[in-house]
Amino acid sequence: MKETVGNFLLRRLEEAGVRHIFGVPGDYNLELLQQLEDRGSPSWVGNCNELNGSYAADGYARINGLGALIVTNGVGALSAINGIAGAYCEHVPVVCICGTIPARAVQRGDLMHHTLADREKGNFYRAFAEVTTAQAVLSVENAAAEIDRLIQTAWRRKLPVYMELPSDLACLEIEVPERPLDLTMPASDPERLEACTTMILDRVGAAKSPAFLLDLDADRFGLSQSIAELANRFQMQVATLSTSKGVFPETSPLFAGGYAGIASTPETREAVEKSDCLIAIGYRRVELVSGFFTDELPPTTIYLNADSVADGEHDFQGVQLEELMDSLVRSSQSVPRKEPAPAEAPSRAAAGAPSDGALTQAGYWKAMQGFLRPGDVILVEDGTSIVGAGALDLPEGCTYISQAVWGSIGYTVGALLGAMLAAPDRRHILFVGEGSFQLTAQELSTILRHGLKPFIFLINNGGYTVERTILGKDAAYNDVANWRYSDLPKVFRRDSKAETYVVETVDELDDVLGAEHVDLVFVESVMDKHDAPIDVIRGGHAFANSDYGPRGPQFAPDAQVPLPS
Amino acid sequence: MKETVGNFLLRRLEEAGVRHIFGVPGDYNLELLQQLEDRGSPSWVGNCNELNGSYAADGYARINGLGALIVTNGVGALSAINGIAGAYCEHVPVVCICGTIPARAVQRGDLMHHTLADREKGNFYRAFAEVTTAQAVLSVENAAAEIDRLIQTAWRRKLPVYMELPSDLACLEIEVPERPLDLTMPASDPERLEACTTMILDRVGAAKSPAFLLDLDADRFGLSQSIAELANRFQMQVATLSTSKGVFPETSPLFAGGYAGIASTPETREAVEKSDCLIAIGYRRVELVSGFFTDELPPTTIYLNADSVADGEHDFQGVQLEELMDSLVRSSQSVPRKEPAPAEAPSRAAAGAPSDGALTQAGYWKAMQGFLRPGDVILVEDGTSIVGAGALDLPEGCTYISQAVWGSIGYTVGALLGAMLAAPDRRHILFVGEGSFQLTAQELSTILRHGLKPFIFLINNGGYTVERTILGKDAAYNDVANWRYSDLPKVFRRDSKAETYVVETVDELDDVLGAEHVDLVFVESVMDKHDAPIDVIRGGHAFANSDYGPRGPQFAPDAQVPLPS
Repeated sequence: MKETVGNFLLRRLEEAGVRHIFGVPGDYNLELLQQLEDRGSPSWVGNCNELNGSYAADGYARINGLGALIVTNGVGALSAINGIAGAYCEHVPVVCICGTIPARAVQRGDLMHHTLADREKGNFYRAFAEVTTAQAVLSVENAAAEIDRLIQTAWRRKLPVYMELPSDLACLEIEVPERPLDLTMPASDPERLEACTTMILDRVGAAKSPAFLLDLDADRFGLSQSIAELANRFQMQVATLSTSKGVFPETSPLFAGGYAGIASTPETREAVEKSDCLIAIGYRRVELVSGFFTDELPPTTIYLNADSVADGEHDFQGVQLEELMDSLVRSSQSVPRKEPAPAEAPSRAAAGAPSDGALTQAGYWKAMQGFLRPGDVILVEDGTSIVGAGALDLPEGCTYISQAVWGSIGYTVGALLGAMLAAPDRRHILFVGEGSFQLTAQELSTILRHGLKPFIFLINNGGYTVERTILGKDAAYNDVANWRYSDLPKVFRRDSKAETYVVETVDELDDVLGAEHVDLVFVESVMDKHDAPIDVIRGGHAFANSDYGPRGPQFAPDAQVPLPS
Repeated sequence: MKETVGNFLLRRLEEAGVRHIFGVPGDYNLELLQQLEDRGSPSWVGNCNELNGSYAADGYARINGLGALIVTNGVGALSAINGIAGAYCEHVPVVCICGTIPARAVQRGDLMHHTLADREKGNFYRAFAEVTTAQAVLSVENAAAEIDRLIQTAWRRKLPVYMELPSDLACLEIEVPERPLDLTMPASDPERLEACTTMILDRVGAAKSPAFLLDLDADRFGLSQSIAELANRFQMQVATLSTSKGVFPETSPLFAGGYAGIASTPETREAVEKSDCLIAIGYRRVELVSGFFTDELPPTTIYLNADSVADGEHDFQGVQLEELMDSLVRSSQSVPRKEPAPAEAPSRAAAGAPSDGALTQAGYWKAMQGFLRPGDVILVEDGTSIVGAGALDLPEGCTYISQAVWGSIGYTVGALLGAMLAAPDRRHILFVGEGSFQLTAQELSTILRHGLKPFIFLINNGGYTVERTILGKDAAYNDVANWRYSDLPKVFRRDSKAETYVVETVDELDDVLGAEHVDLVFVESVMDKHDAPIDVIRGGHAFANSDYGPRGPQFAPDAQVPLPS
């Protein structure tokens, strides 16, 4: 079957479930965008800039299973590379497609604009090879094979890939397969899969306190259901990390809380550290995730990774995570269900008391706890928000999106756009600080342009408060300009009916939260620059005082926001 | 002498003339920022995001001679890399300093946030090596030497460099030289310098129609004065390219106009192509600069590059551009000045007639011609603006800033901030389209925060008009959201006294241009989406119809904005 390179690429993306493609037009991707427009699908979603587009594609992929981004040579690709690196760090499958200078210009050695003007020598391709799991420069000869390889790789590995499409190839016809794209996951070695299944079920069956500890791969490989099934059958407690909040229902009596080493509650530590059969899914021991390496996982922990299993004794390569979990569920069907222990919800730190006066972080997050509903998609920016929202109890069926490891501030504004297009029928809530919001603020205009209606809760507290807890309590470098944030919706969309508020007291916030809303809701909450959730201050101090942070005699002892007395 | 690594770095930057440093705080650069704050100089200029910061550092460097940027590991560095690549393409010396994860974390193999979380393996360093001319990871052992090497390299090569400063090294004391940084340029081989000087002066002296053709190195190496001196002495005509507009006074009778192959006037083509001794400074034959390779430089052209000279017969390596120009000026002191020919200003295409009614591009640029004053700094965004403003006659002493080769839209908003801080006493004018403005709009808030008062002229014509001249005349992918642009100043600064206007007719524009102004002036000019300077449409068609652009039967004949009938 004959098809143009561009149309084949767009068909493949659609077969992999991509219904929206993000990006920015440029001189070298217009052919592909015209093919997209002529084809009618997927839908094109133009972003204000490429970084925001990459965040949108990431947020979209987290819900949809795959995301795609189209940029132009050099200027566009390099503007998006931070978002693509974030997708690599956080295991999100995004296909980054760069419309590059024409193949004939490369062959002739012509100097072209949007390049380094010292001939095309693969510089941008190599830069992307540092932050993606697979790459290709498409040609007429390889396009059919490479397009399939890259999309399959992103899908199967849950990692981003990078593809260069020279502009003069998009409209050329090539021979392509008619059958749809093969999206089956790679198969495990059957013998090892069985050995693993038996080993794990034996261990779990014999254990008194089996438990799960989930990292982000539990979400990316879609394991929520199989984890819940196994947890229920064997009465396993399930702890999450800051990277996996919401992957297991926090309303379940089996939920053991969020684990972060010594920063966890005693009950959560007990469930994880004293388990006689801990199954850790995709665990990466990152300093911020592990409470600065104060995690103490039992030596007998069984580590399940994307394509391997290790438990200290064995090390099985070539066992695929999804298949293994399916196998565990299937093989345990005949095992009698354990009886639930007498229900005892894990004790979690109560949010601070509300205040009748000025809004505080304690009152803010307590109010937000009451606002959440089952099924919400909750986007949480790095900094104060990720810690404040991290302490919330999530209702049933919520999705929680953050960049707990990459931590690129501004991510959530773009990701909100992507998440909303991926799940338009759900309620979306963004928690963001103003310092982060400023990086990507203009993407709010794309949200408004598409008539999307999220709740956006912005904290205006005079700068980078999370940095003030580490160093520079009153330093000018932690200040940001004080915008009229709530005026932005009507600037970005002339006929905006967005409901905008500025609140300074708990009562004002409660009024907003209790009201009926029909359009986008934007709430700017004004708080003191030194007020932060207690865990933010503790975390800032822990970082500063660890040997990873700034310390020593050169900095004054009052250089950090102190703990409240 | 003992000094901390951070303080030594800051001192060296200051010795190289850096009075402002741009960037964004992050977990791994707080030590250095605190050192900067404690030191009191250079001044810290916090940006809304790192891309904007990199553009600001570039704009600053173009006027100041050197720029600097501080970012944080991974997330910050990769957000800035497009701007740094632009500096490489456009030959702008910017020192990019990345505060990276602590050296002890690297040694231990710890997984840290803001990394790919698969151990530090130099990924970001290698990505930056693709777009900078020199790089280093600082250590206690190498810091004193590497800091000097990198700053000197940026200064001497007029190219960006990349430096990683592990956060736990910033405050360590090292032995450093007390003498100030050596900023002398490298010396030429004396014999070749003399041979070159003689060869060139012989050629020029014997020529009937000697001429200069200037590319951007003529600006970056500060050659305006020596070019003017030689041009006057030998009555040489001087043509500029789109990359070097303003480097030679356009009011001079020796100015031959802007050269771009067949897109130039007959007079300019004659001056360049028929010269019997053309000296081309830093000439790079880029497709958009050379009128899609329709340039015809004489075979006898003498090419002067940063450190070499070639004229078809000879090829001198190791001859330094600045030194050579000084040598030519010195050695020609004794040559009698040629008499100016009867003054005959080069005929330049007259701007279009004004309109009493709706504002057109023709009327707009004609009005702007009258608004320019000697000494202005004029920043010109890619797209419609760079072509429209490219046809303006610059008054004496103007500086013209654009990215004619890299062409990253949004560049000028950040660059405006940098240029204003570098030359606060001059009048600054920005010409930008709304599609480009949206990429980096928030940096207007930093301009307002610092009380800077530029003139910002924004064209609101419903999207990427320059792309519509290539493909997608009415395509949705070339649309952008229609913001209330002129409301932004009061959103970004609560007590803004910015003077904002929306104009739709020539008369309204004239009223604004003729009025007295005391604060920042922001003028949104509304025009039709298919109206463009005639040269934009011609250029779009030339690109589309060349074999570098989209063409072929698959695109409808009315897919481009047509030339006006």
